Amino acid sequence: MEHARLVDAMEALVRELQDRIVAGLEAVDGAGRFARDEWQRPGGGGGVTRVLAEGERIEKAGVNVSRVHGAVPPRMAARLPGDGDTFAAVGLSIVVHPRNPRAPTTHANVRLLARGSKAWFGGGADLTPYYLFEEDAAHFHRELRGACERHRPGDYPSFKRTCDAYFYLPHRGEHRGVGGIFFEDLGGDPWKELAFVEDLGRTFPRAYLPVLERRAGLPWGEREREWQEIRRGRYVEFNLLHDRGTVFGLETGGRTESILMSLPPRVRWCYDHHPAPGTEEERLLQVIRAPRDWA
Amino acid sequence: MEHARLVDAMEALVRELQDRIVAGLEAVDGAGRFARDEWQRPGGGGGVTRVLAEGERIEKAGVNVSRVHGAVPPRMAARLPGDGDTFAAVGLSIVVHPRNPRAPTTHANVRLLARGSKAWFGGGADLTPYYLFEEDAAHFHRELRGACERHRPGDYPSFKRTCDAYFYLPHRGEHRGVGGIFFEDLGGDPWKELAFVEDLGRTFPRAYLPVLERRAGLPWGEREREWQEIRRGRYVEFNLLHDRGTVFGLETGGRTESILMSLPPRVRWCYDHHPAPGTEEERLLQVIRAPRDWA
Repeated sequence: MEHARLVDAMEALVRELQDRIVAGLEAVDGAGRFARDEWQRPGGGGGVTRVLAEGERIEKAGVNVSRVHGAVPPRMAARLPGDGDTFAAVGLSIVVHPRNPRAPTTHANVRLLARGSKAWFGGGADLTPYYLFEEDAAHFHRELRGACERHRPGDYPSFKRTCDAYFYLPHRGEHRGVGGIFFEDLGGDPWKELAFVEDLGRTFPRAYLPVLERRAGLPWGEREREWQEIRRGRYVEFNLLHDRGTVFGLETGGRTESILMSLPPRVRWCYDHHPAPGTEEERLLQVIRAPRDWA
Repeated sequence: MEHARLVDAMEALVRELQDRIVAGLEAVDGAGRFARDEWQRPGGGGGVTRVLAEGERIEKAGVNVSRVHGAVPPRMAARLPGDGDTFAAVGLSIVVHPRNPRAPTTHANVRLLARGSKAWFGGGADLTPYYLFEEDAAHFHRELRGACERHRPGDYPSFKRTCDAYFYLPHRGEHRGVGGIFFEDLGGDPWKELAFVEDLGRTFPRAYLPVLERRAGLPWGEREREWQEIRRGRYVEFNLLHDRGTVFGLETGGRTESILMSLPPRVRWCYDHHPAPGTEEERLLQVIRAPRDWA
């Protein structure tokens, strides 16, 4: 494998990031602890899935790493760039569903794919609030922009637009949330891309944990809970209808429970639900229908 | 339009069936009433969506009819059989999610598509229990088999197998429930197919309502509710990942709220949940992993 050293370095990185991010989330939660499942992939490789369920402030979170390799599956052969019959993939995926409806859900991932002479990174991070706090969206975006500026000066606006375009539900006319950044296959020196991805992984807790910390204690009741669970339905719709990682992972025999850890713990679907004009709930809809510049 | 009379006859049928099935479900529920939403399709046609939410015994149900027509959408052109640039489609879709976890969810639909010289019917009905009552599965299948025998003698076994094959979640290794029948584009005289579809629509309440009636009053608690909500998660996974009607409807600009009325009202996703060996919950898993003959 031409990029063996790069793949090894990425694996060491995502394992370290996993430990750090798990520790950071446990510290903010204060009570919940992440369980640990190690799994093997029959075709080669495996991963470590860490899931926290029913914490104090975190209702469900997953922080997963995987390193898989082997023969390119037939279904992937035409879709996967690069050349040759073998591939390797290393990834870190994070999803956090807080209990408090005033605290936003977040998702982040970084990944490296290698096939023959080609190796490329992808990843991103985005924020899905149920109630809009503009300062949270601005803080999250500014931290991500900082990571971009340190490694890819000038690229944040296009990464932000790519994120807005990707996390979009056409049948709802809604974006998933207030966005973040998203990128794939940037080209250039892969070791420099690894440094960018590393910075992004270290930046993520600074972008999200303070937001979780300051919203997790706010008061909420049945009204806020209902709205959160309805909006979580949109999260499910996006992940199962559109998310390439989810659909591709399930199609190619990935570990189902690790892939679907992203789905929220409790969800509602109410027929034709519309928040009343002028409410906080409607204010959220306005911003997810027309993305803003936050950073 | 070559099949205008057939399309008109199907529309009259599905409207009558809608009224009957709504009345039957309201009678069994005893308290809830179906709301009525009439909608127009910009490209031609429209429909009537009837939804019952938070009834006494029915937590959520939808009984929808639509008749749409117009230019064949570009995305459909290659996938849709027949010839010519215009199409018509008439359909009835039913989904019932009872409140009591011991009462099964059901789904049924019948539809007619016409394009140029070709007109063809499709449809089916299936049962998704959370707890297995063998007599319920047998009753449901026997009623459906009866409708098949009256119009398509000898075809029930293949319609049953088609249903088992269709309602399958490969990433779970599970069928959606205990099946039923499913068929599409049978060929032959379309007026005879219409008579079959009519019989199926009249048979459906006899197949399902007695089952709902006898399970809706059984005792249940938090354990059964948790299991029901976890299993409803599989229902969501099937509909958003695999159901052709759902995915196709959303892709081609169908009315989102009418299409997604099929999704259950309250759903849970628990990481890596497994019922204990020997429990009722595990007994259900066995039967949805290995379909049986019920009729």
